[in-house]
Amino acid sequence: MTHLEQALTDRRTLDDPDTPFLALDAATVKANINRLRKHLDALGVTLRAHVKTAKSLDVASLVYDGQPGPITVSTLAEAEAFADAGYRDILYAVGITPHKLARVIALRERGVDLTVLLDSVEQAAALAAPAVGMSGIPALIEVDCDGHRGGVRPDDPVLPDIARTLREGGAVLRGVLVHAGESYYADSAEELRAAAANERRCAVQAAEVLRAAGHEAPVVSVGSTPTAHFATDLAAVTEVRAGNFVFFDLVMAGIGVCSTADLAMTVVTTVIGHRPDQGWILTDAGWMATSRDRGTSRQRVDQGYGLVADLDGTLLDGLLMTDASQEHGVLSMRPDSTAALPDLPVGTRVRLLPIHACATAAQHDRYHVTETGSRTVEAVWPRIRGW
Amino acid sequence: MTHLEQALTDRRTLDDPDTPFLALDAATVKANINRLRKHLDALGVTLRAHVKTAKSLDVASLVYDGQPGPITVSTLAEAEAFADAGYRDILYAVGITPHKLARVIALRERGVDLTVLLDSVEQAAALAAPAVGMSGIPALIEVDCDGHRGGVRPDDPVLPDIARTLREGGAVLRGVLVHAGESYYADSAEELRAAAANERRCAVQAAEVLRAAGHEAPVVSVGSTPTAHFATDLAAVTEVRAGNFVFFDLVMAGIGVCSTADLAMTVVTTVIGHRPDQGWILTDAGWMATSRDRGTSRQRVDQGYGLVADLDGTLLDGLLMTDASQEHGVLSMRPDSTAALPDLPVGTRVRLLPIHACATAAQHDRYHVTETGSRTVEAVWPRIRGW
Repeated sequence: MTHLEQALTDRRTLDDPDTPFLALDAATVKANINRLRKHLDALGVTLRAHVKTAKSLDVASLVYDGQPGPITVSTLAEAEAFADAGYRDILYAVGITPHKLARVIALRERGVDLTVLLDSVEQAAALAAPAVGMSGIPALIEVDCDGHRGGVRPDDPVLPDIARTLREGGAVLRGVLVHAGESYYADSAEELRAAAANERRCAVQAAEVLRAAGHEAPVVSVGSTPTAHFATDLAAVTEVRAGNFVFFDLVMAGIGVCSTADLAMTVVTTVIGHRPDQGWILTDAGWMATSRDRGTSRQRVDQGYGLVADLDGTLLDGLLMTDASQEHGVLSMRPDSTAALPDLPVGTRVRLLPIHACATAAQHDRYHVTETGSRTVEAVWPRIRGW
Repeated sequence: MTHLEQALTDRRTLDDPDTPFLALDAATVKANINRLRKHLDALGVTLRAHVKTAKSLDVASLVYDGQPGPITVSTLAEAEAFADAGYRDILYAVGITPHKLARVIALRERGVDLTVLLDSVEQAAALAAPAVGMSGIPALIEVDCDGHRGGVRPDDPVLPDIARTLREGGAVLRGVLVHAGESYYADSAEELRAAAANERRCAVQAAEVLRAAGHEAPVVSVGSTPTAHFATDLAAVTEVRAGNFVFFDLVMAGIGVCSTADLAMTVVTTVIGHRPDQGWILTDAGWMATSRDRGTSRQRVDQGYGLVADLDGTLLDGLLMTDASQEHGVLSMRPDSTAALPDLPVGTRVRLLPIHACATAAQHDRYHVTETGSRTVEAVWPRIRGW
């Protein structure tokens, strides 16, 4: 046992580890998972969880009741870590480049059914090149539904060209993938339902274009945390990808996908000073612990760098993290608040509710796992890092 | 040798590791170090490098010609890693909390002269508590010169109270520390010189207040990368702290502390797709590789998420990283540019010049070290992580 492991094992409550660190409420994670699984079961589609938010074998194990299930990854490092843990059905959902094919092939040779993503004839040609094509790498074609990022429009004539290029070289067309990235900027249930319907419509249309051109397209994959929760009809869709839902965050609360009570992950930090002349409480969680994400700055209510709760999880009325340097956070009152700045002496621990859970979690190497209402650390779960 | 280490050793040029990763130009680091050391030598003060930017024993070794020198740290994890490497003169420059004293005392018992920082009577009382005071922990009092963050004003009557509280309990007052954090928002050489003069004036004034009250204050510590470079008189100052200067970044270039040619660290990324209808080139470096820092958004020229150069370091005229999701970057032309979007096929590698080197480096675990004008990876240097 290393010094660090010993220290972690010896520190048994949220009062013990030196701050800042991540606390994870396991019961809230489980409730978030159950809500989405129930919704998708009712719609008759498979959940292919995106592990990019938690990057944790332990959290994924909660999604699939302890058994490996179908997952989405954002890096080959995630794919390799989950492969080591027995996962065999993995979608790598970032556009493939020729240089990464060596690791893709190595994973497939280990028995992992790894699918890649592409949206151009040139990428398809790389997968279909003589030396690569014989390994029969399966691919999804990325389809754009809202101008958010990559992908081809479902009516773009290049869509069947990509499919033909893949097939001619021995690669395998497995279907289509759509991500309604613009749904993160929605601000009503109506807009979210419309985004989900549009995501489904584009995916199904693209699959039909391919089938009409004589290609098989068994997989019709859609997903984003907002659309996954607001979809009311997923006919002809085969799987839904979502990642953020395991933890949720203030961006998701701001667009109405969850409430602040559903946020499972917080940053525990300690008060290190005061500037009463400025109305500031200083903490030891700067952007190194929270990330620089300011995702609510475009929403109706700007939550700064996050809301503040006491160590037992009760929100401190009107208090926000309003500024961040590397290892310093500034807490101050929301401009429209009438509450007084709370009295938090040096040494007081508080929790920060994250703006963007994916970005905040990425700043840390592990989670301190608790159960709701308790400060006892039940487990320490590591995160996967790097690429 | 682990699989990862083997892979790193086998991959010998910037064309080889899978992207994204950090490239570090060692010659530029050395030139940046030499410039500041020469400037501070001429002013007759010691450089106490802040290791929070590089978090690298190898980079620190360049600062001090291979011997341990006086350093500043932002976390106790940095202090412990540098102590393991033989560093014995360490300043922990984030306000101390009682909970962290156990690790401070453990380091001091190993023979490390670790100094802590505080700005309140309550922190001084914690250092002077019966069980702690006997270990004689030395402290600097943080003094505020520009309303940036923590610290007491030099004329605040609490200043001698803090000193007295320390002394009465057996702790050791070592002096004062000032950080001109607002200098990051300067935008002329004149403002930077004024910030440096103000930083010095406040530090010296505070030390004199303490001495007049009968306390010793041998250390007068100032510093920030901008003021360190623009100070013209550091009489009565004993040491200067600076960290960012080893790498520099676009925020520093924007306020005139360096030129873009001085930026030593870049993110190497690969083109993964195109959206000609949107004017976008997509890459595999999202905020996970660059951070979410948008520090130039308040400057005269907004550099988005960074400038773009080819793999040999030549800037691509008018091209910016304009948007970021977790593992996707968007490159597009600066709105006022008349240049055409460059032709960068899928698989092309480019370099991103960082907005904020401290934040970008924090997203990675290692540096791939090259010499200017060469793609050969001479070494792989690890980073210190966590708290």
